[in-house]
Amino acid sequence: MTRVYNFSAGPAALPEEVLTQAQAEMLDWHGSGMSVMEMSHRGKEFMSIAAEAESDLRELMAVPTNYKVLFLQGGASSQFAMIPMNLIGRTGKADYFRTGSWSKKAIAEAKRFGDIRVAVDAEADGKFTSAPAAGEFEISKDAAYVHYTPNETIEGVEFGYVPETGEVPLAADMSSTILSRPIDVSRFGIIYAGAQKNIGPAGLTIVIVREDLIGNPIDHTPAMFDYKTHAGADSMYNTPPTYGWYLAGLVFKWLKGQGGLAGMAEINQRKATKLYQAIDNSGFYSNPVDPACRSWMNVPFTLANAELDAEFLKQAGEVDLKTLKGHRSVGGMRASIYNAMPEAGVDALIAFMAEFERKNG
Amino acid sequence: MTRVYNFSAGPAALPEEVLTQAQAEMLDWHGSGMSVMEMSHRGKEFMSIAAEAESDLRELMAVPTNYKVLFLQGGASSQFAMIPMNLIGRTGKADYFRTGSWSKKAIAEAKRFGDIRVAVDAEADGKFTSAPAAGEFEISKDAAYVHYTPNETIEGVEFGYVPETGEVPLAADMSSTILSRPIDVSRFGIIYAGAQKNIGPAGLTIVIVREDLIGNPIDHTPAMFDYKTHAGADSMYNTPPTYGWYLAGLVFKWLKGQGGLAGMAEINQRKATKLYQAIDNSGFYSNPVDPACRSWMNVPFTLANAELDAEFLKQAGEVDLKTLKGHRSVGGMRASIYNAMPEAGVDALIAFMAEFERKNG
Repeated sequence: MTRVYNFSAGPAALPEEVLTQAQAEMLDWHGSGMSVMEMSHRGKEFMSIAAEAESDLRELMAVPTNYKVLFLQGGASSQFAMIPMNLIGRTGKADYFRTGSWSKKAIAEAKRFGDIRVAVDAEADGKFTSAPAAGEFEISKDAAYVHYTPNETIEGVEFGYVPETGEVPLAADMSSTILSRPIDVSRFGIIYAGAQKNIGPAGLTIVIVREDLIGNPIDHTPAMFDYKTHAGADSMYNTPPTYGWYLAGLVFKWLKGQGGLAGMAEINQRKATKLYQAIDNSGFYSNPVDPACRSWMNVPFTLANAELDAEFLKQAGEVDLKTLKGHRSVGGMRASIYNAMPEAGVDALIAFMAEFERKNG
Repeated sequence: MTRVYNFSAGPAALPEEVLTQAQAEMLDWHGSGMSVMEMSHRGKEFMSIAAEAESDLRELMAVPTNYKVLFLQGGASSQFAMIPMNLIGRTGKADYFRTGSWSKKAIAEAKRFGDIRVAVDAEADGKFTSAPAAGEFEISKDAAYVHYTPNETIEGVEFGYVPETGEVPLAADMSSTILSRPIDVSRFGIIYAGAQKNIGPAGLTIVIVREDLIGNPIDHTPAMFDYKTHAGADSMYNTPPTYGWYLAGLVFKWLKGQGGLAGMAEINQRKATKLYQAIDNSGFYSNPVDPACRSWMNVPFTLANAELDAEFLKQAGEVDLKTLKGHRSVGGMRASIYNAMPEAGVDALIAFMAEFERKNG
């Protein structure tokens, strides 16, 4: 068996140790005689798995006690509707930061449910290559909440700070940045993340929401889209995605073994820094993003000659560097280097890029 | 390793062959160097897994070409809202059969979105122990659809026929009956099923919907709750629950090896018949359901002396017969004997029950 270095933006690589443990436990979890997949979500075995995963996540992120941690389904795309359905009722209005492909989708969905104001639009010449600086926006006093995307997965644009929004609750799509470094949860009203980048397999969505924001949904909110439904039932109102929850728990244990989020941040910063340096120091590769706003997680880059893209991908694949093709809307390449991408994978990519440049530059 | 016989109502037992294959492929699917969990849903490897699963399901169920097969998230509880949100617009009214705990939940949720009429109420003395006979109900001419629950998982009540609803589309919650026997899909407007009973792991929901019913959602329907969103994107509008989809595909292959749904029906009928016979022939166990409406999938039964319940469960567990406790609303025991429960498991349960009766009856 040869494991490849998989630079997919999501679903993405998982720690090999996690997969190995899941493999060993597949037919018989801890002597239960069952796969975790086969367990009743209300049985004592799964309840212990679920509780331990939540407890480890709370510890890793230092989640304050006045926040609920929910293990849901439906991905960030469902949160794009759930956030306005649950939070916009107070004033009917919300502010959004428009900084890339995912915040655009969040805005389009929110417009179904209220009056959405774009507080910042970072698009320039049809492209998104920077995030606004701390003083470059103003929040509406009557906004029920402010929404932003700390890391735009497609464009590789990241906020280097948490926006100050005063009394207005801040909502953040952390799908591609959660667990990559410490964050101060108390700065947020609600954080959400699809699991398939830094948490676990696709099909699990984690929501961390301040309790006072729960319980005021607009009319016609389905029970499954009401945070209160899930918060009041420890995420077991209906059958949760049990296997994803279990795998997330294994990832949380793995993260604790990496020195927690502070340890992970050091590794992630080092990985990203060396890859951007390799790009900037070459005359062949380039990254269009404002250096102050470059993502630690998603590194898009182009070749000096786009006609070589296919050859680059082919040769990279031959040395087990996979899923490097950029998003169709941006073109070129994209290396997603989430927590589970080992530093050795980034080193291998840098070495391959140098060799490819030498032969083709 | 000892595998137990797991009678859980869901999440439920999976075929051991499926788990063994998933275990072997966990770190490296078909030489790709990746787990299926790690694959981009838009890559050629996962696209082939997804397409083959859909094709096998269509073949198993003989799904007509004018039906879409969707692989979604959110469980039956999300469908309880999605069905009215997508289908009720035509007249604002719908008819529901009230035959047990799950149809009650479907009704409660649908009332948020329109005028819901209970066409049949099977509750008697606070209990649900039968389904209406074919002539015992009338469908409203102006109903946008009729909803029923062919198998009530908690009460173990099953319809032995498909209700005739004329021109009014029929919606069915098949969570605990899909794939247990052949069904004529053309009789239905829409069929839906949470995966965690007869399909695969929790977190995947399958919807089979006639194309003409798609595209008319009511106002404020979130994009993720609009069938058109998913039908127009081959269930890849957002990241689908890829690992569940893959496992469902393995289950479909396994079912084809069992002689398809006709073969499965024979086995299931035999399993259920012998278990009900054992109950009826004893003076110690009893099942309250009208014999004409007894479920092949969920067999609730009580002991003559409820004070022996705990001892029954304890001794059953000691011989690896697990998760037999009945739902709290019904009490007693419940043996769920879905496709993946081997006939040998039912035989072992029957033998244990006889022995327990001999010692305690």
